[in-house]
Amino acid sequence: MTDLVTFGETMLRLSPPRGERLETTETLGVQAGGAESNVAVGAARLGTDAVWLSKLPESPLGRRIIGELRSHGVRTGVSWADPETSRVGTYYLEHGGEPRGTNVIYDRADAAITTVTPAELPTGALEAAERFHTTGITPALSEQAAETTTALLRAAGEADVTRSFDLNYRAKLWDPETARAAYEELFEQIDTLFVPRRDAREVLDREGDAIEIAHGLASEFDFGTVVVTRGTEGAVALRRGEIYEQGVFEADTYDAIGTGDAFVAGYLAKRIHGGDVADALEWAAAAAALKRTVDGDLAVITPDDVASVVDGAGGINR
Amino acid sequence: MTDLVTFGETMLRLSPPRGERLETTETLGVQAGGAESNVAVGAARLGTDAVWLSKLPESPLGRRIIGELRSHGVRTGVSWADPETSRVGTYYLEHGGEPRGTNVIYDRADAAITTVTPAELPTGALEAAERFHTTGITPALSEQAAETTTALLRAAGEADVTRSFDLNYRAKLWDPETARAAYEELFEQIDTLFVPRRDAREVLDREGDAIEIAHGLASEFDFGTVVVTRGTEGAVALRRGEIYEQGVFEADTYDAIGTGDAFVAGYLAKRIHGGDVADALEWAAAAAALKRTVDGDLAVITPDDVASVVDGAGGINR
Amino acid sequence: MTDLVTFGETMLRLSPPRGERLETTETLGVQAGGAESNVAVGAARLGTDAVWLSKLPESPLGRRIIGELRSHGVRTGVSWADPETSRVGTYYLEHGGEPRGTNVIYDRADAAITTVTPAELPTGALEAAERFHTTGITPALSEQAAETTTALLRAAGEADVTRSFDLNYRAKLWDPETARAAYEELFEQIDTLFVPRRDAREVLDREGDAIEIAHGLASEFDFGTVVVTRGTEGAVALRRGEIYEQGVFEADTYDAIGTGDAFVAGYLAKRIHGGDVADALEWAAAAAALKRTVDGDLAVITPDDVASVVDGAGGINR
Amino acid sequence: MTDLVTFGETMLRLSPPRGERLETTETLGVQAGGAESNVAVGAARLGTDAVWLSKLPESPLGRRIIGELRSHGVRTGVSWADPETSRVGTYYLEHGGEPRGTNVIYDRADAAITTVTPAELPTGALEAAERFHTTGITPALSEQAAETTTALLRAAGEADVTRSFDLNYRAKLWDPETARAAYEELFEQIDTLFVPRRDAREVLDREGDAIEIAHGLASEFDFGTVVVTRGTEGAVALRRGEIYEQGVFEADTYDAIGTGDAFVAGYLAKRIHGGDVADALEWAAAAAALKRTVDGDLAVITPDDVASVVDGAGGINR
Amino acid sequence: MTDLVTFGETMLRLSPPRGERLETTETLGVQAGGAESNVAVGAARLGTDAVWLSKLPESPLGRRIIGELRSHGVRTGVSWADPETSRVGTYYLEHGGEPRGTNVIYDRADAAITTVTPAELPTGALEAAERFHTTGITPALSEQAAETTTALLRAAGEADVTRSFDLNYRAKLWDPETARAAYEELFEQIDTLFVPRRDAREVLDREGDAIEIAHGLASEFDFGTVVVTRGTEGAVALRRGEIYEQGVFEADTYDAIGTGDAFVAGYLAKRIHGGDVADALEWAAAAAALKRTVDGDLAVITPDDVASVVDGAGGINR
Amino acid sequence: MTDLVTFGETMLRLSPPRGERLETTETLGVQAGGAESNVAVGAARLGTDAVWLSKLPESPLGRRIIGELRSHGVRTGVSWADPETSRVGTYYLEHGGEPRGTNVIYDRADAAITTVTPAELPTGALEAAERFHTTGITPALSEQAAETTTALLRAAGEADVTRSFDLNYRAKLWDPETARAAYEELFEQIDTLFVPRRDAREVLDREGDAIEIAHGLASEFDFGTVVVTRGTEGAVALRRGEIYEQGVFEADTYDAIGTGDAFVAGYLAKRIHGGDVADALEWAAAAAALKRTVDGDLAVITPDDVASVVDGAGGINR
Repeated sequence: MTDLVTFGETMLRLSPPRGERLETTETLGVQAGGAESNVAVGAARLGTDAVWLSKLPESPLGRRIIGELRSHGVRTGVSWADPETSRVGTYYLEHGGEPRGTNVIYDRADAAITTVTPAELPTGALEAAERFHTTGITPALSEQAAETTTALLRAAGEADVTRSFDLNYRAKLWDPETARAAYEELFEQIDTLFVPRRDAREVLDREGDAIEIAHGLASEFDFGTVVVTRGTEGAVALRRGEIYEQGVFEADTYDAIGTGDAFVAGYLAKRIHGGDVADALEWAAAAAALKRTVDGDLAVITPDDVASVVDGAGGINR
Repeated sequence: MTDLVTFGETMLRLSPPRGERLETTETLGVQAGGAESNVAVGAARLGTDAVWLSKLPESPLGRRIIGELRSHGVRTGVSWADPETSRVGTYYLEHGGEPRGTNVIYDRADAAITTVTPAELPTGALEAAERFHTTGITPALSEQAAETTTALLRAAGEADVTRSFDLNYRAKLWDPETARAAYEELFEQIDTLFVPRRDAREVLDREGDAIEIAHGLASEFDFGTVVVTRGTEGAVALRRGEIYEQGVFEADTYDAIGTGDAFVAGYLAKRIHGGDVADALEWAAAAAALKRTVDGDLAVITPDDVASVVDGAGGINR
Repeated sequence: MTDLVTFGETMLRLSPPRGERLETTETLGVQAGGAESNVAVGAARLGTDAVWLSKLPESPLGRRIIGELRSHGVRTGVSWADPETSRVGTYYLEHGGEPRGTNVIYDRADAAITTVTPAELPTGALEAAERFHTTGITPALSEQAAETTTALLRAAGEADVTRSFDLNYRAKLWDPETARAAYEELFEQIDTLFVPRRDAREVLDREGDAIEIAHGLASEFDFGTVVVTRGTEGAVALRRGEIYEQGVFEADTYDAIGTGDAFVAGYLAKRIHGGDVADALEWAAAAAALKRTVDGDLAVITPDDVASVVDGAGGINR
Repeated sequence: MTDLVTFGETMLRLSPPRGERLETTETLGVQAGGAESNVAVGAARLGTDAVWLSKLPESPLGRRIIGELRSHGVRTGVSWADPETSRVGTYYLEHGGEPRGTNVIYDRADAAITTVTPAELPTGALEAAERFHTTGITPALSEQAAETTTALLRAAGEADVTRSFDLNYRAKLWDPETARAAYEELFEQIDTLFVPRRDAREVLDREGDAIEIAHGLASEFDFGTVVVTRGTEGAVALRRGEIYEQGVFEADTYDAIGTGDAFVAGYLAKRIHGGDVADALEWAAAAAALKRTVDGDLAVITPDDVASVVDGAGGINR
Repeated sequence: MTDLVTFGETMLRLSPPRGERLETTETLGVQAGGAESNVAVGAARLGTDAVWLSKLPESPLGRRIIGELRSHGVRTGVSWADPETSRVGTYYLEHGGEPRGTNVIYDRADAAITTVTPAELPTGALEAAERFHTTGITPALSEQAAETTTALLRAAGEADVTRSFDLNYRAKLWDPETARAAYEELFEQIDTLFVPRRDAREVLDREGDAIEIAHGLASEFDFGTVVVTRGTEGAVALRRGEIYEQGVFEADTYDAIGTGDAFVAGYLAKRIHGGDVADALEWAAAAAALKRTVDGDLAVITPDDVASVVDGAGGINR
Repeated sequence: MTDLVTFGETMLRLSPPRGERLETTETLGVQAGGAESNVAVGAARLGTDAVWLSKLPESPLGRRIIGELRSHGVRTGVSWADPETSRVGTYYLEHGGEPRGTNVIYDRADAAITTVTPAELPTGALEAAERFHTTGITPALSEQAAETTTALLRAAGEADVTRSFDLNYRAKLWDPETARAAYEELFEQIDTLFVPRRDAREVLDREGDAIEIAHGLASEFDFGTVVVTRGTEGAVALRRGEIYEQGVFEADTYDAIGTGDAFVAGYLAKRIHGGDVADALEWAAAAAALKRTVDGDLAVITPDDVASVVDGAGGINR
């Protein structure tokens, strides 16, 4: 039995060295990045058996993504597209200290995944899984991607697989209204929702504090669990009427991208290992803090790292 | 009066360090590359006033290309496209020694230039120029790009601008038959044709040696000048019934990409400076040899470098 | 009509990677750096038509500087010196966190610009400009450079070009007394003075707070505008008897060099675009803060970046 | 059913940039390298299901090796050793053009694999495989490693797994006499022997040309197949009394390390895919030539690459 | 007369770029690192004549360490071991922001120094020195290393050389009890003890504040001087009944490794130059703060740097 | 007794990565380079006790040169100049394959050494040496440098130190006539002359083959030994009427700069070790070939490397 299946797009992330701008850099670092594979990698590294489903061109660029994910122990179920007629999505990431901010340029239109159908994906992995996870990015990619998302969620539901969903609203992909409508159609298929408080307010039109938001969403859409993240104020989870709160572990941030995915990975991994919601939130927060210290989308961390953070370690170990 | 106007697509060229493969590299070098801007840069560096026309997104990536070309003295006449809805073409270049070869992966579909219209481009530069140059890549990009190519050639012709065209057949963009039909439609607008002997044979269905090919093309399409390149055997030019032959200057090849464009740049620059065909071929061959020693698409060379090669210099200068 | 002309020395800036010392580094980053070209680049990037005047050897090193400035849209009016008998100034920059500090080693003696005469510089650009800007570094370079500075200021004045001057006292170039005498001779030619409060006190022997300093300088030397910068306390401007105050935008400093030049560039660009002093100070402060996040002397920024800072943006944009 | 199982040590390969010496370099490239995992990677990349067996410390360094191999599709069956009391073998590789040569410094004493026992290795993979491959390096590492090699070969034989062995004599590990004795004890367990002609002469004391050596070894030790490699003269195989000869494909050598392993990988992969000995030798030669163009121990190649070499491709593909 | 002799192991320090993890990095920076040579380098750079004694393989790796130390002016007295049968100790250093922390993986077992005998070391240097310094790392390396440490301390004592000792407890080398016993045996040979307050408590079982600890240790073991460091709270020294306190100079920490060694180097150098304990503590604190701004184990600093810190300098010097 | 003393200028060598041009590179490698210190380093690495005399600013750049030389075992006798008023010479080196060639831009005017006097240099080293070596570059730097060269040669002669001189004609420093006059004045102080055949012809106006040149120079200027190098044709030495010939060892050239200095270093080291002229020429040729494989001016080689070349080794050693 597979522990976790995720589904979504993974892009080449192209990023200049610190202090340099995209407009003038002469080198770009290359890494694989995508919310759902970020979660799969984080969870696999934390000891779960994770599978990632997607569609990629059968090219060096497509194989590059596969190779990087596999190196972290993720198994990949990829529909190979014709390299002559398909493309890998890319995103350019420019880290900038404040007040410049960190900027993303997407070049992901018409990526191979936009044509993915359920039939193209390997059968069996999803139905045999304990959990299935996807995010609000995938349905924004194309109508076909949205349909396949729905179909996979439905299939997972029929197979009694616990389905989680991270809202992951991306202002560069769609506007709040369109996104909200799409999300709400999917919500009936979701057991566990991860949502940032800000998106709950600005995209889902929720009001109140995180706890009120969690209660409101849970009651309206019948989620088993709602996890509301609040940036530096930590996270709140609601499950079976009970509220769990978790603060953040302070971190020297080297790269904030992927923090939310590491959070989800930590949560799901701990739940899969049998932890309760409180334990899972603590792992989530620790994984997120650790991610911030590492370059790239991926949470290159270990269970020992997470345990050390939970135990309050740090400093120099020698 | 402008010396030279060129028109075409410039892409981001993304290339791993030597010895590394696209599938496994962690860094990519970034440079601007495109046949027509390569020619403009080479010609500008060799002392001509060159303008490059194109269309790019008004984004850091679009500005990057502009900045790199401007740094070499090229003036740019660019139609800025909406960065939210347009993209920069990219190409991945993997240098490989033999027998692996050098491989190019294009990711240029739907680049901003595919929608360029003559009306979007700055007026005046073309009509005021001495020469206009474009290549067989541009009409392969989109129907609209092909139409604009035709329109610009026609406008140049009406303004008595000498029009040159480099066949530049790209097997990854179209098949020989489609290409041939497109080329032949354009040929009536062309005064000077640059064509590799191999493409003359395989794409234009020509037979015979380079001299026979030159004569055949010149008589059929009424070119003022035909230059046929023969790889390591050098080039042959036919002008006003006279044949000119030029050998190659031997080179330690660091990067072969852009060699043909450097050849054209050397030829056009020398012609613009008043050189005859024999002189122009010699500059062309020298510029091409120099280009091979430099990383990137661009011929980062000077008139002194060219003169040194023609004079047989080399070694250590100190 | 040109918006802005600047005049001064641009050097090769040679800088080891972070954490490394000049004494032990094996690589140096190379960039162009000089107060007046920094201002020209910043202003050009913020949408003005800027020209930089100087003198350089006609060598790869001289062309390197030209190319980098041109890539940002600056037009260059350079007197080419004989590469066999002239040199490019260089400066070695070692970034060091506190308490080590950031150290500069100048190797600029006898650079080509030290022999520049007004007659060598391209005619016309200066007189046709809206504004002319230079700094207190240029007259410190050589007697000839000082004379040419005076001549250009005078010519600008005669052509009704608004003349600005940034004190830019450099303790490694001259002592305060010599500098003060030179500055005061130039002041009668200046319309707008930029001066750090610390230099006003230590070099110009001014007393009191920034406002008092501004009033004192304005009345003594008849400046149209005096801008006094106060480090983290922001800037104060006095124009036509009115005082304008502007705080700083907080910044994660990656490279503090060039912050003052970015400030001036932002100020001048906004004034050229028709902004009033208050607006210009705000742009100045925003440009300065943005510069701090970018490696190098140059403010590789855009009008959109400045607008975002003024609007309080930041974070991750995706 | 697994196609191929290999067993042996994989080290961290630490290598300075080209042109630099170990004594003075400030950076080292890090890669995984080991004859048997090189073969597994090459074979996996050429489409076989390959498993690599070994022992490593459960540390970031051990995981690094696993991750790199997995990224190429190899499955790993590793006995994890206590990271406090075990170590990863390392080797320092200094590439040097002639006459300096390429030098290896081993720091592999007491690596975790020196204590590996058959019982520690995952069961099942070996017995279910079509082929098992190991090399003459493993028995040189320790008595225990030698015993485990023998035990695995014996177990493979009992399960009717075809066993291949690459002599891989390493003068820095043992002397020819000791090596010869060890090899000859293992030979009775081997079906297919790969041996360089030079080692056959200098270590195994064989005389004559490659064909005579192949016949001599085959008859004395009852090998099913003997493949004798002759450097630039290509390879000779003897199987069932028939001799097959294969030349080399010329290559621009970027990194010669791992060429022999790529040869074996190409041979085994083609045999596993059902190719005959002639086909397998051709793939072997093509894989070896391709390897030479790629940095690192690993043959980062594809079946298409091999097919292109066999078909005589090369040049620039665009 | 030599000012200072130190004795101990120096390793290759292998460290990934910032933000990268050992498990995934493709490059490692290489530097020499070892507590006792760190002290020798720091002291030599601060103007003393320092000699470092050790044992290394006569290999490029051994010579690398020698070369790096010599470049800072340290003279080296090294027993060369057979490169075929000995090894250089290495340590992998992964910098991590909090909460990940900085992690060290030692690969130093059986390094050449573990077999060092007093007779192998060059004679004369030690006896002619003003001071001898070693640390609590050396006796943890092997019984032989511990014996040689004792012998050298004894010889130094007999020659009236002032002997200092930095506790430098390393949890990855031994447990507190074993360490304590070893330390206490050595204490009778020590004149000046450097000890972190934390180690005094956790390893030496001391109680009370730093002053109480200093008094307790001094009286029990008859040290001439005891220096207790308290992290960010600064240091306390006890000499001849007098207590000296010294705060820390705030620092932007780029690399914390080697801070303690820089502290000792600053202290010893100032004492050798004739400074009193208060002066020496101030130099120690300044050297430690400066070290934090520099990458690597070594305090690449100058007497001018130290003087600047003591004088409160910083900022940009130009 | 010192084996070898050399005297001359050492510069910072600043060099872009391969394939890049000075005009566009963003990084420069930094190394120490100067003919006389190159010889000292080569000789020291080959087992001699070598001292290098020069003058440098007491700055990080001056210390950088000292540190790099010391790391190779050279002792340095340097007159420290005031860093505020003196400078380090620099040279920019652009490697280029043919036909571009390798180009050097000197920026060495007014370097500290141009003011060096004999009195500033440490006394004793020269008079106690077995050999003294300098080159034809030093007298080209300034009149003062020329005078000091003469004075040192004279002092060496009086102390019976064998004096060698490498012509090292640099066309970028002076013209052949001036150089010839200067050389010939020095020749009476020289015991051993190294001269390239080309310079003998073009600068010293000699005719005939290398043997005739050697005889002519020896008889005219009374040299004890004349060594004439002939590029790829090897070298010829004349000593006491006897002719010795030595071919070149073929080399894959990574960096040709410093080859001649490595030749001299190999020759002198072998002579110092007691070898005869034939042996010394063989070491010279081997050291020169090895140098070509290593980046930088310095011959980072060992006696074992030289012995291996003489013995015909190479290939992969593992």
